[in-house]
Amino acid sequence: QGTRDHPPASVALRDRLLAAVVACFKRHGAAAIDTPVLELRETLTGKYGEDAKLIYELQDQGGELLALRYDLTVPFARYLAMNKVTRMKRYHVAKVYRRDNPATTRGRYREFYQCDFDIAGQFDPMIPDAECLKIVHEILSELQLGDFLVKVNDRRILNGVFAACGVPESQFLAACSTVDKLEKMPWEDVKKEMVGEKGLSPEAADRIGEYVRLHGGLDLIERLLQDPKLSQNQLAKEGLGDMKLLFEYLTLFGITGKISFDLSLARGLDYYTGVIFEAVLLQQENDHVEEPASVGSVAGGGRYDGLVGMFDPKGRKVPCVGVSIGIERIFSILEQRVKASGQKVRTTETQVLVATPQKHLLAARLKLISELWDAGIKAEMLYKKDPKLLKQLQYCEDTGIPLAAIVGEQELTDGVVKLRDVATREEVRM
Amino acid sequence: QGTRDHPPASVALRDRLLAAVVACFKRHGAAAIDTPVLELRETLTGKYGEDAKLIYELQDQGGELLALRYDLTVPFARYLAMNKVTRMKRYHVAKVYRRDNPATTRGRYREFYQCDFDIAGQFDPMIPDAECLKIVHEILSELQLGDFLVKVNDRRILNGVFAACGVPESQFLAACSTVDKLEKMPWEDVKKEMVGEKGLSPEAADRIGEYVRLHGGLDLIERLLQDPKLSQNQLAKEGLGDMKLLFEYLTLFGITGKISFDLSLARGLDYYTGVIFEAVLLQQENDHVEEPASVGSVAGGGRYDGLVGMFDPKGRKVPCVGVSIGIERIFSILEQRVKASGQKVRTTETQVLVATPQKHLLAARLKLISELWDAGIKAEMLYKKDPKLLKQLQYCEDTGIPLAAIVGEQELTDGVVKLRDVATREEVRM
Repeated sequence: QGTRDHPPASVALRDRLLAAVVACFKRHGAAAIDTPVLELRETLTGKYGEDAKLIYELQDQGGELLALRYDLTVPFARYLAMNKVTRMKRYHVAKVYRRDNPATTRGRYREFYQCDFDIAGQFDPMIPDAECLKIVHEILSELQLGDFLVKVNDRRILNGVFAACGVPESQFLAACSTVDKLEKMPWEDVKKEMVGEKGLSPEAADRIGEYVRLHGGLDLIERLLQDPKLSQNQLAKEGLGDMKLLFEYLTLFGITGKISFDLSLARGLDYYTGVIFEAVLLQQENDHVEEPASVGSVAGGGRYDGLVGMFDPKGRKVPCVGVSIGIERIFSILEQRVKASGQKVRTTETQVLVATPQKHLLAARLKLISELWDAGIKAEMLYKKDPKLLKQLQYCEDTGIPLAAIVGEQELTDGVVKLRDVATREEVRM
Repeated sequence: QGTRDHPPASVALRDRLLAAVVACFKRHGAAAIDTPVLELRETLTGKYGEDAKLIYELQDQGGELLALRYDLTVPFARYLAMNKVTRMKRYHVAKVYRRDNPATTRGRYREFYQCDFDIAGQFDPMIPDAECLKIVHEILSELQLGDFLVKVNDRRILNGVFAACGVPESQFLAACSTVDKLEKMPWEDVKKEMVGEKGLSPEAADRIGEYVRLHGGLDLIERLLQDPKLSQNQLAKEGLGDMKLLFEYLTLFGITGKISFDLSLARGLDYYTGVIFEAVLLQQENDHVEEPASVGSVAGGGRYDGLVGMFDPKGRKVPCVGVSIGIERIFSILEQRVKASGQKVRTTETQVLVATPQKHLLAARLKLISELWDAGIKAEMLYKKDPKLLKQLQYCEDTGIPLAAIVGEQELTDGVVKLRDVATREEVRM
C-alpha cells in the first residue's frame, strides 16, 4: 500500500528530472554520499516530533533493532558525527520511507525519493543559507513548473513570538507544530487546537494569531525589529538580524521577487534551529482572485545546528543548513503534463535493429550484431530464427529505433550491409 | 552490521562503475523499471530455497506483512505478472537485502547493489540466453578486471544426472543445493552432506561425483549426448541439445574462449529451470600451477521459466532468462586498485572558485557567482565574509578546482574579472 512499480516510461521521465536536480547540486560544488536504507532505531528516535509514529520498523530477528530511514537529513547528521566530518557540502538522492496515509493522486507515497543538498560547517552567517535558497530558485525555474513562491521564516523568530505572547518555553515545539498546520486549516481550527489540545490560553493564541498572519519582505523585517515586544527577546532579535542579512544576500542573487518572509511558516520537524523555508507552486487562476492558490510544497529545508551534536559522544556540534527537493510532487506534475500532451516517451536508446530479409540467416545476424555491440553501438535483433522483414521493421516503428541494418543473401555475397532509415525508407549499401 | 556509509570518493567510483554497466544494458536495448524495496512477505516465500532465512522482515505495525527485497528477479517476475507483460527486456540497478554473515573484506554486505538484465518472453531457443552471456563477456572485458571464466550448465542436465544416478525427483533440489557448495568445499565434504544430511545413498553420491567433475566445451557436450545413461533421460537430452545450440551462438559471438560447460555449477536458487551460469575472475599466479585459482563469482544468472507463473492467478507462464552483475565484488577490486595506485579521485566537478583579494567584497563575489551559476558554470566560493586569497587558492588545490575567478577593487573599477589557472598561475583579465 502506498508504494508503486515504475514502468519504463516513468523511469525514463524520472531519470531526466533527477539528472536536472543533480546537475544543479553539482553546479554548486556538492559531493555525493550514500548511506544504508537501514538505520538503528535509536538513531531515528526523538528526531521527528509527532511524525515518529510513521517510522517503519524492522522485525527483531536477532541482532540490532533496525528501522527504515525516514529522511536523508538524520542519516547525514549521523554520518558527519560518526566520521568526525566538520565541513562538507553534499547531496544525496535516495528513497525514504514513511507509514503515512498515502494520497497517491497528489504524489504522496510511503516510499519516495528525496533529493537533498546540505552544507555542514561553521561559516559566516547566512551565506550557506542564501545558497540553499538560490538552489531552490534555480531548480524550480529550470524545470518550468510555473510560478512559485519560497516562504522563509526562522525558528528563533517563531520562538520569540511564542515567548512574547506568553507561551512557556516547554510548549514552543507543540505550538510550532500547531502553527505548521495553518497551511492546511483555517486559523480558527489552529487556535482551537492550541487552546484545546496544547493547553495555551486563548489570549496567548490570539496574540500568536496576529503575528503569524504577517508576511512581506525587508520592510516587514524592519518593522518587527522595532516591535516593542519582539525586540526585547534576544532570540527573536538574532533571528530578525539574520533574516535581514539573508534578504541582502538574496537581493545580490536577484531572487527576492519570489521570496516571502512569512511568519506562519513553522515546518513540522523538531530539529530546526534557525532559518526555515518552503517552496510552493502557485496556481495561476484565470479569474481575478486576490491571492494565487497554493498547490503544495515542492521544496523545503532549513538550518539544524544541533542535530549532529546529538550523535557525537562528546556532543560536538556541526552547524548545518540544507534543502530537500520534493521530487515526487514535481514528477506527478510533469507526468500529467506529458500525458496531456500525448507525447510518447522513448524508453530505450537502441540505434539500429539488425534484420534479415530471408530465412536461414540467423548466423549472419548474430555475427553482425556482435560486431556492432563491440563497437559500442546500441543494437537489437528479434529473438527469432527466421523473422519476417515486415515484423522487424514494425518493431523499429513501435519502439522508435531509427535505423535497420539489413543483411540478406545478396549482401552476404557482396560483403556489404544495407542500412535503412526506418522513417524515410531510404537505403544505402555500405 | 554488514552495511556501510559510502563517502564521496566511493560514490564517485561506484557511479563510474554503474554507468559502464548501465551503458552495456542500454547497448542491448533494455528499458529500466523500478520496484519498491518493500515486497509482501508472501511474494518472497518459497523462492529462495535454504536462503529464505536471510530475508529481512518488517515488523507488523498494522496493515500488510512486508519484507525487504532479497534480489531483483522475484520483484521483476511479480511485476510482469501483475502488469500482464509478456515480453520485455529490462534492466534494474538497485539495492537488495540479505541477513547473511557479512564478509566485508571480500565485498559481501547485507545491503548491496544488484545490476540485473533480463529478457522475458517466448522466443526461439537460446538466442536470449546467448545474449546474456555476451553481456557478461562485454562487461567483464570492458572493466579490465583481468582474466575471467564463465561457467555454464543447465538445470535440466543436472536433474538428468541426478535421475541417472538414482536420486528420486523429490530430492533434486536438495542434491542441487549441495552440489552448489562444490566451489567452497572439497568433493569429500559435499559427498558427506549428500549422504548424511540429504539422505542420498553413498553409491548415488559417488556416481554424481563422477559427472560433476566434468567440464569442457562442445566436445564434452557431444560426449554426454552419447552417454548411455544420460541420453535416456528426456530432460538431460533437451538440456544437452540446447547447450550445443548455445555454444554455436557463442561461437558466432566469438566468446567461447572464456566459456566453460561445467557440470559442477548448480546455483543455489530454486527458481532456475534451464541454462545457469556464473562468471569468476581468475587469479594469475606467477608460479606454474595447473589451474588458475578463482577469486569468486562476479556475475551469475540463468533461465527461470516458471517464476512469473507463480504470481499469475491463472498460472500463465512467461519464460525468462537473465543475468546479475556482482557489482560489489567488482567495486572492492577496483577500490583496492585505486588505493594501491595512490590516485586521488576528485569528488566534485567544480570548474571555478570565485575569489576576492581584499576585504569588504562579499557582495561582488555573491553577484559574480550568481551569474556563473545562472550560466550553467559549476562554481564555488568560500562561506566567509573576508577570506584570505591564499586560503581561497589553497582550497582550489585541495579540491582540484582548476580556475579561480578573482574580483578585487581594481577589477571592480575596470569592470573585469581576473581568471587564474590554479596550476600554472597564469592570469588573464576578461
